[in-house]
Amino acid sequence: MEQEKCSMETTGKVITCKAAVTWTIDAPMSIEDVEVDPPKAGEVRIKIISSGICGSDNHVLEGDFKVPLPVILGHEGAGIVESIGEGVSSVKPGDKVLTVFLPQCRKCDSCLHAKGNCCLKEDVRHPVGLMLDGTSRFTCRGRKLHNAFGTSTFTEYTVMHEISVVKLDEAAPLEKVCLLACGFTTGYGSAINKARVTPGSTCVVFGLGGVGSSVVLGCKAAGAARIIGIDINEEKLARAKALGVTDCLNPRNFKKPIQQVVVEMTGFGADFSFEAIGTIDTMVAALESCNSSYGVCVIIGVAPEKSQLAFNPMQLLSGRTLKGCFLGDFKTRDHVPLLVDDYMKNKINLDPLITHRLPFLKVNEGFDLLRSGKSVRCVLSF
Amino acid sequence: MEQEKCSMETTGKVITCKAAVTWTIDAPMSIEDVEVDPPKAGEVRIKIISSGICGSDNHVLEGDFKVPLPVILGHEGAGIVESIGEGVSSVKPGDKVLTVFLPQCRKCDSCLHAKGNCCLKEDVRHPVGLMLDGTSRFTCRGRKLHNAFGTSTFTEYTVMHEISVVKLDEAAPLEKVCLLACGFTTGYGSAINKARVTPGSTCVVFGLGGVGSSVVLGCKAAGAARIIGIDINEEKLARAKALGVTDCLNPRNFKKPIQQVVVEMTGFGADFSFEAIGTIDTMVAALESCNSSYGVCVIIGVAPEKSQLAFNPMQLLSGRTLKGCFLGDFKTRDHVPLLVDDYMKNKINLDPLITHRLPFLKVNEGFDLLRSGKSVRCVLSF
Repeated sequence: MEQEKCSMETTGKVITCKAAVTWTIDAPMSIEDVEVDPPKAGEVRIKIISSGICGSDNHVLEGDFKVPLPVILGHEGAGIVESIGEGVSSVKPGDKVLTVFLPQCRKCDSCLHAKGNCCLKEDVRHPVGLMLDGTSRFTCRGRKLHNAFGTSTFTEYTVMHEISVVKLDEAAPLEKVCLLACGFTTGYGSAINKARVTPGSTCVVFGLGGVGSSVVLGCKAAGAARIIGIDINEEKLARAKALGVTDCLNPRNFKKPIQQVVVEMTGFGADFSFEAIGTIDTMVAALESCNSSYGVCVIIGVAPEKSQLAFNPMQLLSGRTLKGCFLGDFKTRDHVPLLVDDYMKNKINLDPLITHRLPFLKVNEGFDLLRSGKSVRCVLSF
Repeated sequence: MEQEKCSMETTGKVITCKAAVTWTIDAPMSIEDVEVDPPKAGEVRIKIISSGICGSDNHVLEGDFKVPLPVILGHEGAGIVESIGEGVSSVKPGDKVLTVFLPQCRKCDSCLHAKGNCCLKEDVRHPVGLMLDGTSRFTCRGRKLHNAFGTSTFTEYTVMHEISVVKLDEAAPLEKVCLLACGFTTGYGSAINKARVTPGSTCVVFGLGGVGSSVVLGCKAAGAARIIGIDINEEKLARAKALGVTDCLNPRNFKKPIQQVVVEMTGFGADFSFEAIGTIDTMVAALESCNSSYGVCVIIGVAPEKSQLAFNPMQLLSGRTLKGCFLGDFKTRDHVPLLVDDYMKNKINLDPLITHRLPFLKVNEGFDLLRSGKSVRCVLSF
């Protein structure tokens, strides 16, 4: 009720609110008053209620993933529709929604293909940071700001295309399901959909942050018998055991390459390997950790721009499969609501992934927690 | 009958016969008298009747694929069992057989896995060139010779492990089905088994030699609607049309990268792409030619030793799958006989692949034909 009232008061008007602006990389975000334009045709203005802090945003802040500046980052958000533009039919003011960086337009070549989830309207691979009409809905101190991957959730209000907005069950707790907008979905789906982990199999997961931990949950749900978790952070290794990791490896405790350790401890390599960090070295290690004849390796982490994954192609000729995916290979608007259903039915437990909560205005502290390795997921409350 | 007689006369004795010996790379093979020892336990001595000339042997001769020297090359052979060693039960003297470079021991981790075909007894990835007991069955001028990948078919007689010998239908014409020992099986299976080409799909094949042409046949058998063939040899392009290629591209006729041409002519990239040449550039081009969201790229060619396949991992994150396989992902002793059945039932036509025939002693001329691009497959008769 209160949301609807709020909506009626602001519809069609510019909203001034607080947002975390990234003016430059390698510096803290700046909390600013920003003006958020009303949504144009096909667009939705959303009051953000909660947002997770994801490693990809940190890659931007550290200069490894280049996006146009100045920008409002954040993409793992949940909120309530404040108002809608002309022609929007899938959500209405007051609806609970997730903000996903991968749209599902349902019209492009990828959306129309049974196996495609990378909608051609995405703004991830070569980010422009503007709405599809080439303009911005954010202004700060008279200057236009870019959005991040068509989302931008480090702001009290954002404007997104309807095709990137996932409608939620009315009862969904936004302070938890925001993780379904990116981290959980990315990791879980990579195991369930892309690798198609089989019952009784052996899996190895490189990186036990929010995404890697969700891979572990996906492997466990698929019936993996053994899940080897790899991280250089002992705290994360300890936490991962509670999620289902059966063997923990810290590469710093070994003199030989960690892929060699994995191959030796599994006999001939894992059935499935996952890279959830985003460095070339760990991608190669993940590839070499899976069985040379029938192993499947899924790359999930985003490597620094222009980096090259390089390996001897003989690694593939013996039978390996190397894959990658965004957002767990789910068609976002069709399938993420099904994950929310699973969460509501207690089939998915997000609690162990949320290690920290902070008020939105302390977003920079949240990134400090991420960088120090102390948090798996820190969720911001607005 | 004659074979059995021959067998009885030679069983247990050293056979002296003609073989093409590679003493050094970058030089013609030398036709020599070699002594071929009787088979030891688990081994089979085979009278070679015909052998195809495959590009991988040429990679050895040109120094791109290193094997221990001196060596008797050749692996795409068909012949008749002359004698068997102790404990051999799957073939007997007089049986028609194929010589395959990938064994199927039926006991190792890979053989026991439903999806593994790269038997751990193989000698392809890091060739040693000796029998499993570490010795050789070939001697020439007092010097021991290595075998090639556990096969060696450029000799009137060879000795192989039983686990690498595929028993054939008695009626199979050896001068044709020898192609099932490597080239045809490698290409056809990569389309049917590894890529799992779907009806109505668009495929692109880099390289239209023996293997690439067999990929085309596999794509066609799987019901591909469009098959784009790529080669720099106009003669091969013309021949490929007869096999089922719908669009021919010669990269030399374009100023832009050929992967860009493929993406433009298909709208958003091919469903399936295949690399059947063995260079890093064509591997990257094949990867980039398939659809970024749901494309599947299969690497078949053997790249020069120590070369690195390098690409931006973002190419995978959008959803692509990159795979490789030896011998079309078939479990050799189980599945190659089924291909022979298909050949006997006229479901597979090998005739268009065999462009040249030569007597064995002219093996060097056969390699000249291959290098000049004049032959798809030249079959040697013994």
